[in-house]
This record gives sequence, structure tokens and C-alpha cells, in this order.
Amino acid sequence: METPRYPLADVGPLPEDIRARILAVQEKSGFVPNVFLVLARRPDEFRAFFAYHDALMEKAGGLTKAEREMIVVATSAANKCLYCVVAHGAILRIRAKNPRVDAQVATDYRHAEITPRQKAMLDFAMQVSQASHALEDADFAALAAHGFTDEDAWDIGAIAALFALSNRMAHLTGMRPNDEFHALGRAAPAK
Amino acid sequence: METPRYPLADVGPLPEDIRARILAVQEKSGFVPNVFLVLARRPDEFRAFFAYHDALMEKAGGLTKAEREMIVVATSAANKCLYCVVAHGAILRIRAKNPRVDAQVATDYRHAEITPRQKAMLDFAMQVSQASHALEDADFAALAAHGFTDEDAWDIGAIAALFALSNRMAHLTGMRPNDEFHALGRAAPAK
Amino acid sequence: METPRYPLADVGPLPEDIRARILAVQEKSGFVPNVFLVLARRPDEFRAFFAYHDALMEKAGGLTKAEREMIVVATSAANKCLYCVVAHGAILRIRAKNPRVDAQVATDYRHAEITPRQKAMLDFAMQVSQASHALEDADFAALAAHGFTDEDAWDIGAIAALFALSNRMAHLTGMRPNDEFHALGRAAPAK
Amino acid sequence: METPRYPLADVGPLPEDIRARILAVQEKSGFVPNVFLVLARRPDEFRAFFAYHDALMEKAGGLTKAEREMIVVATSAANKCLYCVVAHGAILRIRAKNPRVDAQVATDYRHAEITPRQKAMLDFAMQVSQASHALEDADFAALAAHGFTDEDAWDIGAIAALFALSNRMAHLTGMRPNDEFHALGRAAPAK
Amino acid sequence: METPRYPLADVGPLPEDIRARILAVQEKSGFVPNVFLVLARRPDEFRAFFAYHDALMEKAGGLTKAEREMIVVATSAANKCLYCVVAHGAILRIRAKNPRVDAQVATDYRHAEITPRQKAMLDFAMQVSQASHALEDADFAALAAHGFTDEDAWDIGAIAALFALSNRMAHLTGMRPNDEFHALGRAAPAK
Amino acid sequence: METPRYPLADVGPLPEDIRARILAVQEKSGFVPNVFLVLARRPDEFRAFFAYHDALMEKAGGLTKAEREMIVVATSAANKCLYCVVAHGAILRIRAKNPRVDAQVATDYRHAEITPRQKAMLDFAMQVSQASHALEDADFAALAAHGFTDEDAWDIGAIAALFALSNRMAHLTGMRPNDEFHALGRAAPAK
Repeated sequence: METPRYPLADVGPLPEDIRARILAVQEKSGFVPNVFLVLARRPDEFRAFFAYHDALMEKAGGLTKAEREMIVVATSAANKCLYCVVAHGAILRIRAKNPRVDAQVATDYRHAEITPRQKAMLDFAMQVSQASHALEDADFAALAAHGFTDEDAWDIGAIAALFALSNRMAHLTGMRPNDEFHALGRAAPAK
Repeated sequence: METPRYPLADVGPLPEDIRARILAVQEKSGFVPNVFLVLARRPDEFRAFFAYHDALMEKAGGLTKAEREMIVVATSAANKCLYCVVAHGAILRIRAKNPRVDAQVATDYRHAEITPRQKAMLDFAMQVSQASHALEDADFAALAAHGFTDEDAWDIGAIAALFALSNRMAHLTGMRPNDEFHALGRAAPAK
Repeated sequence: METPRYPLADVGPLPEDIRARILAVQEKSGFVPNVFLVLARRPDEFRAFFAYHDALMEKAGGLTKAEREMIVVATSAANKCLYCVVAHGAILRIRAKNPRVDAQVATDYRHAEITPRQKAMLDFAMQVSQASHALEDADFAALAAHGFTDEDAWDIGAIAALFALSNRMAHLTGMRPNDEFHALGRAAPAK
Repeated sequence: METPRYPLADVGPLPEDIRARILAVQEKSGFVPNVFLVLARRPDEFRAFFAYHDALMEKAGGLTKAEREMIVVATSAANKCLYCVVAHGAILRIRAKNPRVDAQVATDYRHAEITPRQKAMLDFAMQVSQASHALEDADFAALAAHGFTDEDAWDIGAIAALFALSNRMAHLTGMRPNDEFHALGRAAPAK
Repeated sequence: METPRYPLADVGPLPEDIRARILAVQEKSGFVPNVFLVLARRPDEFRAFFAYHDALMEKAGGLTKAEREMIVVATSAANKCLYCVVAHGAILRIRAKNPRVDAQVATDYRHAEITPRQKAMLDFAMQVSQASHALEDADFAALAAHGFTDEDAWDIGAIAALFALSNRMAHLTGMRPNDEFHALGRAAPAK
Repeated sequence: METPRYPLADVGPLPEDIRARILAVQEKSGFVPNVFLVLARRPDEFRAFFAYHDALMEKAGGLTKAEREMIVVATSAANKCLYCVVAHGAILRIRAKNPRVDAQVATDYRHAEITPRQKAMLDFAMQVSQASHALEDADFAALAAHGFTDEDAWDIGAIAALFALSNRMAHLTGMRPNDEFHALGRAAPAK
């Protein structure tokens, strides 16, 4: 595994708001995910990225947090983004309380242990991620048939769009997933 | 041309910072580009998007403003994003002072009236846009051979990544380019 | 923009029929489109090409002249043919009396300011252009549903086929669009 | 095998020049290849097509007639054109005096019983046929390394371009290869 | 046509069971197809391959032997496998008593002289061969609509899967079709 | 996750050799991987498949057992085969004594924690798996540059070829990975 092309930021000299966010995530997770240290080299981009991330991933709405992570994992796997598949795969295992679902969604979401509604959600997300110009009314109708509103459609598509950006930044910067992610969320709850 | 799926925001009731930005662009351009009115429906996403945009498109650095617009036009055309090709094509015509270059870059940048250095820049941007997982050292070396630094590489790749997001949002929301864009920058300066 | 690989023909020594055609187009347009000067190097191919062109583009039938140009622009853009997109984009703007429609059709005809009937026409043309082996009865039925006859289907498909040839000849010969094309048909008529 | 979509022309009432050409080919071959009867429904297109065909396939130059047929077979197979592969496969067997080479060139020309020079010729032809926008100087240089001139390059590319048209017309019209083609040129000469 | 990368086995020193099989095929056909001599270098793989082959190609069931060969030819052509297209094309001509059907199925099975039921069989086989992850209930239903059972579906899919392996082994080893194959089954029976 | 299309075999009535193999794997692993119970419905295919598998995966030679599993995981992920990625991912974690490497290899082997020699091995395997017709001498030379022999090349390619078959059979039969696989090999050894 090669060295990242851009050095990870030292936390010490970072602007206060960025440093605070990084320390908070470290306290919560026990480690600092590399995406923070890669993007912190450019504070304005860091702030914009996480503002966008929070606006889509932390908001209220018709999607559960596990479902949002499914979108990230499915589209990032299609884009072969190692960082996002490993990091968000871990979060997905935790949020879905299922130690198998991330590998399933990453490899072939159509045969994963998910609901038909979630499969429809991922069909839409993959269309946005892989060929958004071909989106058509039928894609929105397929979502609506599972009870998703037009605002949900925006959420699904916008998450796919944000990780289209994020996957490319990870590849551009040679971002490596922290080893810690692999071990998270592996304990299987009772089914 | 169909109706946009999501209604354009009314400027009146928008949060003050967003309203101010929109009024400023209207004053400068004589019209409000639809991207502002589509995204304003969701203020947090609006703010994050334009913060990201400004961080990459308005910053100092090794790329001219015309070159940044070339990246937008080339990658948006590959993604068949009508809004971005038309809107940024207009800005490119103005910034490059060349009424032909946008159509050239959109159709086939390899045969456009641009410098070899700009062609190398677009080769890199297209790799990030269309298959970022396959980026390799040779892609960075090809940039370096034209004098681009690693920070320039980040700029090029990050612009391609941001418009990967932007193109998908335009398709998702059915964003229409304002008619005004088509007429801008058409007067040919002396060559 | 590189030098064309094959020198443009001198009009003087050309065979009389070819010279006459070139002088006629120059008188009408004010300049000689490069396709004439590139192909004139080989008189038999020149005559065959323009005979084919006239048989499809100048004939009577169910398609307007603007519609024929839409087919050329849409399929040439899919093939990344700079010459054809720019030259026929200009003719399309003039014939459709719409200074925006060429960029729309070139970038993403499915979201262009065209009628549903024209969209069906372009769907068929793109099928012929990009994957003709997969044409099936349903494609003809989709045309018929918009009132196109089987002879119209032949016209649409044959124009797409002719420009499959033309686009490849333009790429092979390094054909450059004349600068004059960019300025034609830009004045917006009242809508 | 379905009925052709467009009826074959009756030879009797055809314009004299077209009728004469068809009768000549019948006398020479013992049957009328369907391409003549399909295209004869539209005399102007018939004349233009065969004028183009003769200009490229019957001319003098650096390519043998067998080599021109190789180009037709390789590119038509890539386009899944049954008519052209079967009809020109037969002609190739005859002209190359080799009853195996058509199937080889159609399936995988890179492993066919052809010379390295012919393989380079087909590499170039396939580039024109399948992705002409990506032609570059290196493609011409690869031809030149085998002794092909720029005029030969034009011949090779133009044949690939003409059959890009021809394959699409065959698919559009549902053209069926005559059964007679399958039996031609099967006798193996001494090796 | 280049030399195979791996030398053909000498029959003399081969294990007795393998030698016996090879001599039997030679007696029956008059020559030893190269697949036997290439794979015999590795006796365990030879035995496994032909055991798999016989289990699928020689068994009773809902498919005729000609139909099984159609599957081999169609999928091998899609994979550009010269050995399998030529060798199994010959067997298909013989088993189908049709000297044209192999070239048709190899070039474009959708327009071949086969029944609608056989076309449905090949649609399914091609789905397994080219994108098996996207198989869905509708694909099985399309087979069932033509009277195929789920066991027939297994047969069709398994033959496509076995030749996915076989095509790759032929490419890996540079396997050449014996010249004898080209001449087999060419005599046209009365139609 | 849907029901498998073909019922799992009951072990009791199976032929003795198959029953014995299944009981042996159950004793060793604590569960019966579903591939055994799916294929056992057809004893001849079962025997051929596992004979092929053992001939390639259990043999001596230049590849470690972990490396063979890497080939399976990388190519199966490219084919979106959930069963093979999950089952062989578990075996890979165990054999490589690395709980992270399977997810890395499945998502983007080019950025996995593997040696340059292993990356070259996977480049070759992916070429065989995804486009074997385009294999060329340079691919073998790239292997040789890392010390792989031509027999190693056969091993690498043949494993990729066998799992081309296996992935298709898993998709055809709707094979589900046993839940037990997800938990295996997760304990991280000291690095």
C-alpha cells in the first residue's frame, strides 16, 4: 500500500474550528479517520466538505442513518473507492446492527439482506452515481412506489452526488482507510 | 424542455445571506442563474456548495480562471450536463476571450484551440472525472511535465470532483440553463 | 489546434464539377467549409459523398431540414466529431431559428427544447448511430407512435449512418471547422 | 430469420443504369446480392453508395483487394453486421485464396493467419471504426512503421468509415445475406 | 498466426486414460483437436475439464445437441475465442445440418436462422456469459415462456459458464483451431 | 435476500463420495458451505467442479495459498459474485493472516496491502477474467519481470478462468454465502 501523495495534516497548527472537530471525532471514535487529516491541509475545502456532509448525513428526513450509509457503500464500491467502502462499511455495520450487510451491499446490493424499499433506494442512488444524465420520471416513480417523497429522492441523489465528489477526492489524494475501521461492528447481534 | 422537478425558490423569504448572494449575482449578471434558485430550497446545501465552489474557483493558484472553466466544461460535457455546459461554457467564452473554445472543449477537447499544457490539464481532469480509481503516478507525472505542481494537481482534480457532484445535482433536480447564457461572450475579439 | 493531416485542396486545378460546387457554396455562404477542401483531394470520393449527402439532406419527405440537422448534431456529438457538431450546429441554429438548440442537442438531446416527436426521432437515430445491431421492432414502433412512416425511419437511420461515415472521415483527416461557423445563427428570434 | 422490413426491389422497373449494374453482377456471380435489391428502392442512394464503394474498393493503391476485404470483415464483425460479414467473408476467402481467414478475422483478427503488416492495418481500421475520435499520431506512425503511406491510411480509414455506414444500413433495413455466399471460396488451395 | 505459448503434449507418454480418450477422438474425427493436446499437459485439469464438458454436453435433457453448440458458439464469439468459434462452429454445422447457422450465430444470433425458442435460449446464455450478476427472475420467466424448465435453465447457464472458463483457457494458452474444422459440415442439405 | 432458485441438496441420499466430502468439510469448518449443497444436486457436475478446484487450488507451485485466494477475491468482485467474495474473502483473511486484505482486494486491489509481485499477479488475473482475448506477450512479460514462470502464468490464468465459471454458477443458482463466513479470520494478528 503506497504512501499517500499528500501528507496528513498535523493537528496542532490547524485553525481552531477544524482542530476542535478533529479532536471531537477522536474522542468519540478513539482515532482520527484519515479523511479529516487529508482534507485539513486546505481549511476552506475541509469546511465546505463537512458542511455538505452534515447537511445530508445528519439531517432529519425519510431515510434512516443506516440507509444513508448503504447509499455511500454501494456507490463507493461501484467507484472502487477503498477509503469510503471501508470507512462507511464500518459505520453501516454499526448503524444497521448487521456485520454482513456492508460486504453484501458493496459486492452486489441487489442480492443483499435489505428490504425491497432499500433496494429501490439503491437503484436510484446508483443511477445518479453512474449515469445521472439518464435519470427519468420512471426512476422517481419507482421510488414513489415504495413511499419515498420527492424530498427523499433529493436526499438519496444528493448523497450519491456528494460521494461522487468524495470518492474522487479519496483517489486523488491517495487516502488510506485507517486499520481501525476493519474491526468495528463485527459482533453479530441476535438475528 | 420539461418543467424542473423541484420548484425554483422565491428569493423574498430566503435567509438573508442567501438572498444577498443571489441579489449580488443578479446585479452583476443581469439575471439569476438557475443553480442559485434550485439549490436555495435547501439553505445548508446551498451554503456548502457555494463555499466549495468559491474555495476552488475563486482561489489564487497555478490555474487561470479560464482554465478552471475549461475543466468544468470538459468534464460536464462528458457527463452530459446541459446546465453546466451551457452556463460554464458562457463563462469560459468570456474568460478565455474566445467565442469558439467552449464548443470545442465540450465536443472534443483533444482537438480544441488550447495549449498542450491545457490539454494535459484536461487529460488529468477527465481521468478524475471518469475513472478516478485508475489514477496513477504517470498521470501526476504528465502534469508535472507541463510545470504543474502537486497543489495544481489537487486543484484540477478537486474541480473535476466538485463538478461530478454538481452535474449529478443538475440532473437530479432537472436544472435548466437560463436562456441568457447562450448569448454571452459571443463577440469574437481580434485574434 | 493541430494542422490537418491532409492538405486542403487548391480550388483552381480541381475538376470542373467540383470547382463549380465549391464556388457555389462560397458564393452562398461567404466562405468554403473545410469539408469541401478536404474531400476534394479525391474527386470520386467527393462526388460520392455529396451525392449521398444531397440524397438524404435535400430530399422531400417527412422530416424538416431542421430535424435532419438535429440528427446530425446529436449523433456527431455522441461520436465527438468537432467538425460536424460545429458546422451542422450552425446550420441547425439557422434552420430551427433557435440559437440555443444546437448546444442542447449536442450535450443532452433528451433535455433539449424539442418536441416529443423530435425526441423520438433522435432516440431512433442514436440507436442506429451507436448500436445499430440492437435495433428492434420496438424502435420502429416508437417512431410510428409519433406518426413517422417506414420511409421516415429509413431517412432518419440513413442520415445517422451517413454521419457515422462523415464523423470518421473528419477524425481521419483532422478536419477543422471554419471559424465562421461559430458566429452563424446566434441572433435570437422572438420566442 | 425474419422478413426484411423493406421489400426487395423488382429489377424490371428500375432505372436503366441500376438495372444494368444488377444484371451485370448477376451474370458474374450467378445471383444478385441482396444489398443491390435493398438499396435499389432509392436510386439516388444506390448510386451514391456504389460510387463510394467503387471509389474505395476498386481503386489502385497500396492495399490488395484481399486486404480491403479484411478491413470490411473485421469492422463489420465488431459491429455485428451479419450481411457484411457473410458477404464480404466470402469475397475475402476468394481473394485471399484461404477458406479459413474470414472466420479468423471476424472472430479475433489479432490471432488470424495474417501478416504483422495486415494486423497493423486492421488495428488502424478498428480504431477508425470503433473510436475514431481517439485516433492520434501514434496510430499513423504504427501504420508507417509497416510501410503504409498517408494515402494508404486514408484508404484504410475510409473503408472502415464506409462500412460504418454500410453496417448501419444493413441493420436498418434488415438486410439478409444470400445463402449462396456461405458456399463460396470454401475449397482450400494447397498451402 | 503465432506459435502457441505452451507446447502441445506428445500423446505417447500421457497417462493411459488420457491417451485412450485422445486416440478415440482421433479415430472418430480423423484428427486430434488441439484442445486435447493443450490441456493434456496437465492431466488433472484435463480430466476435470472433460468430465465437466461431458456432464453438460453429452447428457440427456431438454436441449438438443445442436442447441448446446449454439450456446457455445454465441458466447464464445462474444468473448472473441477463435478456437471455440471455429471448432464448435463446425460441430454446430454438423449437428444442425445447416452450413450457415454457425456464422449467423457467431455474428449476430438475434438475426440467425433459429427458432424464437432458440433465440430465447441464447438471450439467457448471453446474459450468463456477459453479465451474470444482472440475471433476474424475468430472465427465467422468458425461458419458461418458451417451455424451458428450471433444469433446462441450469443446463443453458452452466454451458455458458463452462465456456466462460474454456474461452479464457484458449486465450491463455494461445490455442489454435485445427485447419480441419473449417471444412467440416459445409455441404448444404436440402432445405 | 431472496430464496435460492434451486433447493439445497439433502446430504443423506447423496452418492457416497459426495456425502463423504461434504461431511469432511463440515467436520473441518463446523458448517457446510452452500456451494457444496447447491452443486450436489448434480453429482457429475459436483465432481468435475471440485476436481478442477482441487487441481488448481490445492496443488504445489509458485503461488501461495493466500495468493490463489487473492485471485479468486479480485476476479469475483469484478464479477459482483457475492458468494465467492464472502466465502473466499474469509479464506483469504485466514491464509494471509490479515483481516483487512479481502476488503481491499475486493474493492480496489491496486491500492491493497499487497506486494508489487502480487499486484502484477492480479493484473494478469484480471486481464484473463475481464478481457482474455486481449492478453498479449506484454502481459506474460510483466509476470516474468516479477519472477513468475509460464507455469505460474497458467496457474494464475486458470484460477481466474475457473472462477469465471464459478461466479456464473453462483449467480445462476442464486447461491447465498453462509453467515458463518463473515466472522472468520477477523482477529488481527500482530503486524
